[in-house]
Amino acid sequence: MSANPVLVEALRGGAVESMHRGAVAIVDADGRSVLALGDVSRAVFPRSAVKLLQALPLVASGAADALKLSDEELAIACASHNGEPAHVATARGMLAKAGLDADALECGAHWPGLDTAARELAAQGQTPDALHNNCSGKHAGFACLACALHGRDGLRGFFSGYVEPGHAVMREVTAALQAATSADLAQAPVGIDGCSIPTYAIPLDRLALAFARVATGQGLSADHARAAARLRQAIARAPFMVAGTGRFDTRVMQALGERVCCKVGAEGVYCAALPERGLGVALKMDDGNTARAAEVVMAAVIEARLRLGTDEAALLRSLSDLSLRNWRGTEVGTLRASKGLREALA
Amino acid sequence: MSANPVLVEALRGGAVESMHRGAVAIVDADGRSVLALGDVSRAVFPRSAVKLLQALPLVASGAADALKLSDEELAIACASHNGEPAHVATARGMLAKAGLDADALECGAHWPGLDTAARELAAQGQTPDALHNNCSGKHAGFACLACALHGRDGLRGFFSGYVEPGHAVMREVTAALQAATSADLAQAPVGIDGCSIPTYAIPLDRLALAFARVATGQGLSADHARAAARLRQAIARAPFMVAGTGRFDTRVMQALGERVCCKVGAEGVYCAALPERGLGVALKMDDGNTARAAEVVMAAVIEARLRLGTDEAALLRSLSDLSLRNWRGTEVGTLRASKGLREALA
Repeated sequence: MSANPVLVEALRGGAVESMHRGAVAIVDADGRSVLALGDVSRAVFPRSAVKLLQALPLVASGAADALKLSDEELAIACASHNGEPAHVATARGMLAKAGLDADALECGAHWPGLDTAARELAAQGQTPDALHNNCSGKHAGFACLACALHGRDGLRGFFSGYVEPGHAVMREVTAALQAATSADLAQAPVGIDGCSIPTYAIPLDRLALAFARVATGQGLSADHARAAARLRQAIARAPFMVAGTGRFDTRVMQALGERVCCKVGAEGVYCAALPERGLGVALKMDDGNTARAAEVVMAAVIEARLRLGTDEAALLRSLSDLSLRNWRGTEVGTLRASKGLREALA
Repeated sequence: MSANPVLVEALRGGAVESMHRGAVAIVDADGRSVLALGDVSRAVFPRSAVKLLQALPLVASGAADALKLSDEELAIACASHNGEPAHVATARGMLAKAGLDADALECGAHWPGLDTAARELAAQGQTPDALHNNCSGKHAGFACLACALHGRDGLRGFFSGYVEPGHAVMREVTAALQAATSADLAQAPVGIDGCSIPTYAIPLDRLALAFARVATGQGLSADHARAAARLRQAIARAPFMVAGTGRFDTRVMQALGERVCCKVGAEGVYCAALPERGLGVALKMDDGNTARAAEVVMAAVIEARLRLGTDEAALLRSLSDLSLRNWRGTEVGTLRASKGLREALA
């Protein structure tokens, strides 16, 4: 296997200290490749980058309307959130609409992803529960979907085991993923995700195709096309819910609204829909680095592919070419999209 | 620049999800290459992996004896510690021996690297100071060295600005690094480290040579050879001080004592001396991943190069081939030294 190109470089004192390789696919809704950098046919586990696709049945089933889910609730159904108090409260409220509570969640517990939120929780003498899990909103969405599939009577019993691939809830979720990507998931390598649901390895260009479909509605069923548009709208209206304080997705969508719908995944995956361009983007860093590498690449892609105002361009540039400071606040280096990536995107 | 080989793989559901490339140099004290995997002539910033070399003047100057530094204090002078209470207390005690306190440190403050220690500090309503910085012991060692260079009268004024390359303290430290590596640091790319002292880019095989010299004393001045042996002994006797709870360096040296003297550096660097083999090891992961990649490679190197007992071998294997679990505790994959690395080491 030949090496993917270097997409991100970390410099110290003017010398390259570390580098990140990866692949980027940009395609239109007809599946035509607009950019293929690195091996875009290699199957990758998309992890949390496809939460919007996994939430399509929540809307398409009618559950979101029946339970009167708010923009915040729909956004957190697509989120990898920081576990901040507003995230926890929103996920708790969604579960309550389904008549359930945190005990019904099978995602496991972890300390809030935002350090300050974790320390505040500790300072209050508390420990985290499943609602603090970055995926709690997605799982609360699964509970709402279960409501539509089964009704609220005996829902707790029906919902139990929902993270297993054969459960009625997960079959709906997987079918939506398969429909959006046109990938044969029955034949795909399968793993277990951080939150215990299955994750299927899908070629990067197929993931990009799915997000081009999300961007345009083309190639999706009418129900899924409407659901995708509703979810994009909800995320654009409530971008705090999809990530949180200081996070890339929140900052970018607060600035750009519905012009971009992007979502991070673990292990260096990023997906995005660019509706005004009719394009989908999927990228994966070989080394699995998300915060320092995948985000820089996604920022460079958005910079290159959207016509941006001055403030917007400055925000994106601050995410694709940034200074690194040490504990004393001294600038010690830079983190930047590689020349090769910039040239390929030009 | 051709790509370095894949040294570590992360698998999920049986498929490779992410991979880490890098280079490894193993050399003897005559500079003969025993293993050169990847580009070992490329200069890398060794960061904290050379703290033992930077502490040679602390002992060679007589400061350590004059101030009656304990094994714990000498070990923490070579440490990237967790900021646990015992680390903070030890660094504070060293500074007091020099008549200084935390206000004299120029390393900056950060929350303890160990999450539980950070949350305990927060739960007590406290915030971190420079003593919690993972480098506080190294800087306290600089203060003790300053005592030997200047005497305690007016030490605070003399010590001020010690992180600058031209300061008398830092000139001593840099001279030791140059002597141990035989690298011409005046010509080397220079950056500023996380703790504000200079860091010089040095070819990987020269770093390995320095640690072969630490392992054997060969090629060092008599004073530095004695200092290296004393520091190795102190670290072996007080391995908690060099890192802390759950950390690779602490666990490995608790198990192997003076048979290995290893030290992690930021951005995926690791160095080690293997005294009974007369070898030095230096490695750098291209992507800068330390915890998940550099540690796995170092574990595989130690496994391959030392004759280990059953428990020792089991410990090292648990660090070079380990299962990955999700938030619910379900095994979801493995992290392992690559076949190519194992074969090269065999």
